[in-house]
Amino acid sequence: MQQNLYLYNSLKRTKELFTPITPGYVGLYLCGPTVYGPPHLGHARPAVVFDILNRYLHHLGYKVRFVRNVTDVGHLENDADEGEDKIARKARVEKLEPMEIAQLYTDNYHEEIEKLNVLKPSIEPRASGHIIEQIAMISQIMENGFAYESNGSVYFDVVKYNATNHYGKLSGRVLEELIAGAGEERRELEGQEEKRNRVDFALWKKASPEHIMRWPSPWSDGFPGWHIECSAMSGKYLGETFDIHGGGMDLLFPHHECEIAQSVGATGKDPVRYWMHNNMITINGQKMGKSLGNFINLSELYAGSHKLLEQAYSPMTIRFFILQAHYRSPLDFSNEGLKAAEKGMKRMLNAKALLPKLKTSATSTSKISDVIDSCYEAMNDDLNTAIAMASLFEGARIINSVYAGTETITAADLDSLSKFFTLFVEEVLGLKEEALGDDSSVDGLMSIILELRKDVKAKKDFAASDKIRDMLLALGYKIKDEKDGATWTRE
Amino acid sequence: MQQNLYLYNSLKRTKELFTPITPGYVGLYLCGPTVYGPPHLGHARPAVVFDILNRYLHHLGYKVRFVRNVTDVGHLENDADEGEDKIARKARVEKLEPMEIAQLYTDNYHEEIEKLNVLKPSIEPRASGHIIEQIAMISQIMENGFAYESNGSVYFDVVKYNATNHYGKLSGRVLEELIAGAGEERRELEGQEEKRNRVDFALWKKASPEHIMRWPSPWSDGFPGWHIECSAMSGKYLGETFDIHGGGMDLLFPHHECEIAQSVGATGKDPVRYWMHNNMITINGQKMGKSLGNFINLSELYAGSHKLLEQAYSPMTIRFFILQAHYRSPLDFSNEGLKAAEKGMKRMLNAKALLPKLKTSATSTSKISDVIDSCYEAMNDDLNTAIAMASLFEGARIINSVYAGTETITAADLDSLSKFFTLFVEEVLGLKEEALGDDSSVDGLMSIILELRKDVKAKKDFAASDKIRDMLLALGYKIKDEKDGATWTRE
Repeated sequence: MQQNLYLYNSLKRTKELFTPITPGYVGLYLCGPTVYGPPHLGHARPAVVFDILNRYLHHLGYKVRFVRNVTDVGHLENDADEGEDKIARKARVEKLEPMEIAQLYTDNYHEEIEKLNVLKPSIEPRASGHIIEQIAMISQIMENGFAYESNGSVYFDVVKYNATNHYGKLSGRVLEELIAGAGEERRELEGQEEKRNRVDFALWKKASPEHIMRWPSPWSDGFPGWHIECSAMSGKYLGETFDIHGGGMDLLFPHHECEIAQSVGATGKDPVRYWMHNNMITINGQKMGKSLGNFINLSELYAGSHKLLEQAYSPMTIRFFILQAHYRSPLDFSNEGLKAAEKGMKRMLNAKALLPKLKTSATSTSKISDVIDSCYEAMNDDLNTAIAMASLFEGARIINSVYAGTETITAADLDSLSKFFTLFVEEVLGLKEEALGDDSSVDGLMSIILELRKDVKAKKDFAASDKIRDMLLALGYKIKDEKDGATWTRE
Repeated sequence: MQQNLYLYNSLKRTKELFTPITPGYVGLYLCGPTVYGPPHLGHARPAVVFDILNRYLHHLGYKVRFVRNVTDVGHLENDADEGEDKIARKARVEKLEPMEIAQLYTDNYHEEIEKLNVLKPSIEPRASGHIIEQIAMISQIMENGFAYESNGSVYFDVVKYNATNHYGKLSGRVLEELIAGAGEERRELEGQEEKRNRVDFALWKKASPEHIMRWPSPWSDGFPGWHIECSAMSGKYLGETFDIHGGGMDLLFPHHECEIAQSVGATGKDPVRYWMHNNMITINGQKMGKSLGNFINLSELYAGSHKLLEQAYSPMTIRFFILQAHYRSPLDFSNEGLKAAEKGMKRMLNAKALLPKLKTSATSTSKISDVIDSCYEAMNDDLNTAIAMASLFEGARIINSVYAGTETITAADLDSLSKFFTLFVEEVLGLKEEALGDDSSVDGLMSIILELRKDVKAKKDFAASDKIRDMLLALGYKIKDEKDGATWTRE
């Protein structure tokens, strides 16, 4: 912890020296996934960005309690169905118990995100598992006069809160304008008539008779509003005021603004000292959106099976690509960018592999301490992984030059460079050599084989197509022909 | 579902034809781990045994909702510390938040158990996430007069319950003897003076001031008793009466007996139609016990790092070993037994690998349908995997003989045998070739692709052969054509 780490605090709109509440310990909360569908590119960036924060804090010697929640209930969406619970809706479609959907996609999220070498959180609380804590917090807010019941639902009284506090301190939104304005970004359309003001937001919603996910409460059988879970769970596991809260910029308003209001409304204390937000991902310059058909699932990226992809990209390529940009810059996904990342990563890992082969000399032609210092400087300057990686590439250049005999390095310098390079690449940035036989290679090879099989079937060469099937079967791969192509499973 | 599956019902002490409540659907609940330590051999058997049940039910065409809980709170132990919560105790020792311990060992359990090729449950509820449901059930039991509050804790009134119901129907215990007896097996020593009768068990415990895991309730800030979670969670996700409840024989009394009493006490209905219990594991003939120092963690088994182990045993060897015994027989772990299992598994998988290489004849020397029928018969006879595996070994013997030319098989018989053998080994028994490093998959898939390329080149379809080369190149595989075929390298 001899390093001075500066972090951009969205609350103060400036970089600040990071000092934890308890010396040596950091409480970190990250808004996790809503588990009603497979994880996509939009999930990858915050997961990787805050994994870097977590890893770097560890590296600096902090003990980090990293809490990342699972939203398995209560996330209402501003869709045609006007505020129906995302998970319950999917459940009705597939005739499953909502918790079965939540479990499936929680497992799926873990699997795909962990391929990106994202470390597991210390605690992963589920919203549905903390209804009591949410009810207790809502009661506290009501006792303090900042929430009211209306027809079995409970709403946060934003106007009343704003009279003695500042609603908008994080987002810079002005309440009067929000009340007057078009009300963009409000997530709930349902229940407007129950509210004192259109800016008020739900803390508890009474469940309609057909709503499956419901719990008893002092107000109704219902379910918590979307915002309250993060306030209740972060408070439970990290305390009423904790160090760092992270999430995507899209969550800054209203979600995080509401989190602040809820915590101040309940405890009188600001919940978070440093608010950090990663910027968004675009796809070939376009915003990601369901209607645009450019949502790419992580499994599609790994297999190269989305129409926008020219090839498969391994999890490490995607991780590397995300780290090549500073987390507060927008990041545009393109085949060119990903291919460049693939090459860059190879270059970095190849250099690392050369380290044990370097010969030492009496003098060093490059100043190794400069490379190391500039890397730490970049990380300490609001986790600027883009510049940190440039330092690492400078290190790679030196390694290659020494190997080629065009530069020299002393034994002491080589020792420093080796330790630094290995540590940063592996532990801090979390980049690792991908197993030759990792799933993405298998995915890629399997898609080639299935494509070849499609070709022979198109030529009505069924002997060849059966041969392919049988050879795969002998290896333990089973092909299933479906309407829009073949899928495979491995036993 | 043309098969008639008979299961031994502990409740009836006899084998019964299995018929589900809803045709085509099965609700299955299994008592999962208490997550306060790494998973050991004792966790492996129920996990594998009920995985077989889950897989076989799937194979028979049922849609199974498989619920396996995580006990992350409320499991009291009869130790020197007299009823302290296992997780909270460990938490104090390591100065961690209890939920951090629970998360760590939940993750650990998943990792080690999934190596055994145990399929994930459809829903994996956590006890701490279902406090509301447990409180609601306790309230219901109190309303029905079968529980009473005492000093902020709530106890189940076993004597009163037994006046109109039968406490002991599952275990065969006789209440009078339990009251008179030494009270062996009771898990709670604390709070005896609060009970009307020593056989009463806690539904809710008032937390002592230093107890960290606690929730508000109508009776006290406290935590649920051990037994109530399974009743509340199985009821929530499977209904008041569901098909099958599984667990180790050690849980039959008092845990499962209490589950029945709780459900009948709350709903008036018997909760479970088929109770299934796996027998215990011994180590070199001895019971497993902390004091005996013969608790072997799964990670130790996989690494061969426990003093009782002569070598490492792969997860598949352990799975195979467990399946070689019928689940209701005791199973003694020994190095000899494990080594024999290792050999047996190789023999079975080798035979499977020979299947595509067998030549067919006009007649079959063995009656293949007998082999298949006897395997189904064994599975239908209370999941007798021991005998089912004997049938598979008979299949393996035939395969080897046909391969050696000492027996013959018709094309139709070979087709039946291949399908049956592969299906049973892989899907029903869940045995798979262990990654010899996953490189073997890449090798295998690459040789398929090179073979296909040879085929198209033989047909002078150079467009196709170039396409294959280019697709491989995009994945980073480079083909080199040489005199006696092509070789490949990966960049």
